[in-house]
Amino acid sequence: MSESWADAAERIGIDLHLTLSRPGSRQAALTHALREAVRAGRLAPGTRLPPYRSLAADLGVARNTAAGAYAELVAEGWLVARQGSGTRVAERAAPPAPTRRPAGEPPRPAGPAHDLRQGRPDAGSFPRTAWLAAARRALTAAPDEAFGPGDPQGRVELRRALAEYLARARGVRTTPDRIVICSGFAHALRLLFGGTGGAGRGPLRGPLAVEAYGLAFHRDLLAQAGVRTVPLEIDEHGARTTELDTHRGLRAALLTPAHQFPTGGSLHASRRTAAVDWARTRDALVLEDDYDGEFRYDREPVGSVQGLDPERVVYLGSVSKSLSPAIRLGWMVLPERLVGQVLETKGLREAWAGVPDQLTLAELLASGHYDRHVRRMRQRHRHRRDRLLAALAAHAPHIEVTGIAAGLHALLRLPAGTEAATLATAARLGIAVDGLGVFRHPAAAAAPVTDGLVVGYAGPSEHAYGAALAALCRALPPDHG
Amino acid sequence: MSESWADAAERIGIDLHLTLSRPGSRQAALTHALREAVRAGRLAPGTRLPPYRSLAADLGVARNTAAGAYAELVAEGWLVARQGSGTRVAERAAPPAPTRRPAGEPPRPAGPAHDLRQGRPDAGSFPRTAWLAAARRALTAAPDEAFGPGDPQGRVELRRALAEYLARARGVRTTPDRIVICSGFAHALRLLFGGTGGAGRGPLRGPLAVEAYGLAFHRDLLAQAGVRTVPLEIDEHGARTTELDTHRGLRAALLTPAHQFPTGGSLHASRRTAAVDWARTRDALVLEDDYDGEFRYDREPVGSVQGLDPERVVYLGSVSKSLSPAIRLGWMVLPERLVGQVLETKGLREAWAGVPDQLTLAELLASGHYDRHVRRMRQRHRHRRDRLLAALAAHAPHIEVTGIAAGLHALLRLPAGTEAATLATAARLGIAVDGLGVFRHPAAAAAPVTDGLVVGYAGPSEHAYGAALAALCRALPPDHG
Repeated sequence: MSESWADAAERIGIDLHLTLSRPGSRQAALTHALREAVRAGRLAPGTRLPPYRSLAADLGVARNTAAGAYAELVAEGWLVARQGSGTRVAERAAPPAPTRRPAGEPPRPAGPAHDLRQGRPDAGSFPRTAWLAAARRALTAAPDEAFGPGDPQGRVELRRALAEYLARARGVRTTPDRIVICSGFAHALRLLFGGTGGAGRGPLRGPLAVEAYGLAFHRDLLAQAGVRTVPLEIDEHGARTTELDTHRGLRAALLTPAHQFPTGGSLHASRRTAAVDWARTRDALVLEDDYDGEFRYDREPVGSVQGLDPERVVYLGSVSKSLSPAIRLGWMVLPERLVGQVLETKGLREAWAGVPDQLTLAELLASGHYDRHVRRMRQRHRHRRDRLLAALAAHAPHIEVTGIAAGLHALLRLPAGTEAATLATAARLGIAVDGLGVFRHPAAAAAPVTDGLVVGYAGPSEHAYGAALAALCRALPPDHG
Repeated sequence: MSESWADAAERIGIDLHLTLSRPGSRQAALTHALREAVRAGRLAPGTRLPPYRSLAADLGVARNTAAGAYAELVAEGWLVARQGSGTRVAERAAPPAPTRRPAGEPPRPAGPAHDLRQGRPDAGSFPRTAWLAAARRALTAAPDEAFGPGDPQGRVELRRALAEYLARARGVRTTPDRIVICSGFAHALRLLFGGTGGAGRGPLRGPLAVEAYGLAFHRDLLAQAGVRTVPLEIDEHGARTTELDTHRGLRAALLTPAHQFPTGGSLHASRRTAAVDWARTRDALVLEDDYDGEFRYDREPVGSVQGLDPERVVYLGSVSKSLSPAIRLGWMVLPERLVGQVLETKGLREAWAGVPDQLTLAELLASGHYDRHVRRMRQRHRHRRDRLLAALAAHAPHIEVTGIAAGLHALLRLPAGTEAATLATAARLGIAVDGLGVFRHPAAAAAPVTDGLVVGYAGPSEHAYGAALAALCRALPPDHG
């Protein structure tokens, strides 16, 4: 009884799918099957494989097909071919023995049942199809030099697309030559203040005024770069930029004007002009962190502060909130006089952002697909915000919510002294959420907002959000007043 | 005479291609045409556009199509719609006036006529089709969490694919948990020695032994991180690792064992074991920079030093030479005890490499397409090397060439004292090339190689290479002996 090719394949130990292969791709199918069998260990190191003529006969393929498959896998190192001992599976160098306990990968704890931490767009919303289509168009059209030694300032295609997009979407006034592409906000801070170990220390020096509430990660980064930070109090109009003048020696101020992080208000017009006036008077700079400026729900987006004076404001943004934190792309829109200094700090060969993503984002921006995605996300986030407000109105109407006009998070104000207990209750209920305290500058006065929860509503998937809201409401302190 | 839609489009000022559009995509075509017309200035800011009903009638499209196009462009900010004044092209915020001379983009000088600088693979050889196909497979199959907050160690898919590939291609012995993905070699050096401003100073301290010839950029980077470098002389067997013991306090040595950069020899087996023995005896580390280890022409690739002792060697590589310097992806294969420290230096939120490129490279490696590309490039570079040797044999047979067994460059030895004059002649002939002197460590003795040219042969395109070789031969000093 003659053996079918499928039986022969099984006998040899390979998972071969030939019926579905076009004749021209049988070699690819056979190569793939052999490679997988070796990789999975079904063909152990040292195993002698049939001579290619026999393999070809058994599987019903051409001799060239079998010979070609063997040759490719020998070249790749999976097989070895020696005169007189045929073709064998290569011996694999033994992986190193663990010296202590198994290294590296600590067992990843299961994620929290309800992840309401701020700053996380829903990973499932990343527009893979649009991204891939843009990548195909962009990389097909790119000039050869795009794949050569690059320009640390970033691809001109991206700088042009950004200049245009930021003008119409955020009121930013710039030209492509004043934009420097970087790998995110932290990278941008390092390029401004040094601490990269690059060719320069960075054009800016401390002390730096920062809002009294903000990301501890940024304060730590600045501290490591030797930059002292001075907190600016926040009130109902936003950061008290009117007080910038009272601090001697301040040369820069870092603000989140569109949506104060994390308390949520928009910087009042009078505070914006005060910041720019101070910068003009003191030959200082405003650093504008526009981390989620595209997400404004109830009225027109508020334009950037940069548009008030491009020579006095450094505008910083990234795709971390609008697309994904997995895409490491950010931008710095600079006053003309700073461009050269920032590029010197970056260095000719700094770890700049990869070109494929730069070209893809440029295409996404120029084609309108980025806009389309942001609009869709804005709708989605607005619905999330509305559901949060409805849940609170129904189950915890005594809790005040602020910062709801924009962004991916809101601030729930808690009765004085209840933050720690609320966080403990939340943890018991499987909720991951941040209290307001962790964002407070160590030197900031405690007033006016002391206790609160920063609730991110963009992260959970659709099916998980309702349960997260219900759990959140159970974690909140009851109404005692 | 009724107007055709094409005439109507021209009259309005838009470049509209409807005949080629599928009915369902007429809105996309119209949106695109309007957007381009505004972008290009053919529809100037303030221009009033026809009411959507008129536009629809003139162009022969449905009213919804015209209304939808207008709505999309209003949302994007290109158009504004006001009650009573119709739809107009948005006023554009004035870009900032140049304060001095036009900023930023200095006129890019035309490149050299003949670019024979080392370290540049041919940008035209980047495998765009394979890269895009791999990207499509990888991003389509990736789990949602791939687009969430990432793992600074790098995607596990890439670490697995690298562990496997490096084992069979370079004899590296490791597991995925001992690999840290970074953005290139410079980034890796900073993660080891600090200077990133990250959470830690880096696990390693100076002084660091380096080969007497190497990239000045690396020495400068190390100096800025406060690391003193001690040169190791190089002879016909490679770096004199036998002398590592004579330097007190040395805890690490940086080598390019597969193909000494830039003099080109492979580190002899006895020098490899000497390096590992020293590291074991002194509780020190060997840092192996395997920048072009896949490109060996005349015999089997030489395996890595790391394979001799994974606990004493840090193995560093990247895709800069094998794929493109525009893809910012590198890897560090670490002894188990260093993984945690390097990740701490990297920090939770360091500017790590973008996820799309990581996933794409993982797929390229796992599918065998990376191997295929490297094999093709190895052939191409071998031909380039052969043509260089043939040209020299024909026109400058007195010039000795070394380092030809591997890599993307070779060393042409020049008679003593002729390097500067040769570089000057080369410059006059429009040749960009590096002299050996720029690679010499400031503290290294001048012997044994003093004058030379480091000729990179991978960079020029096919049609340019012959002319570059001819010019090179004319630049070389004539035979005086």
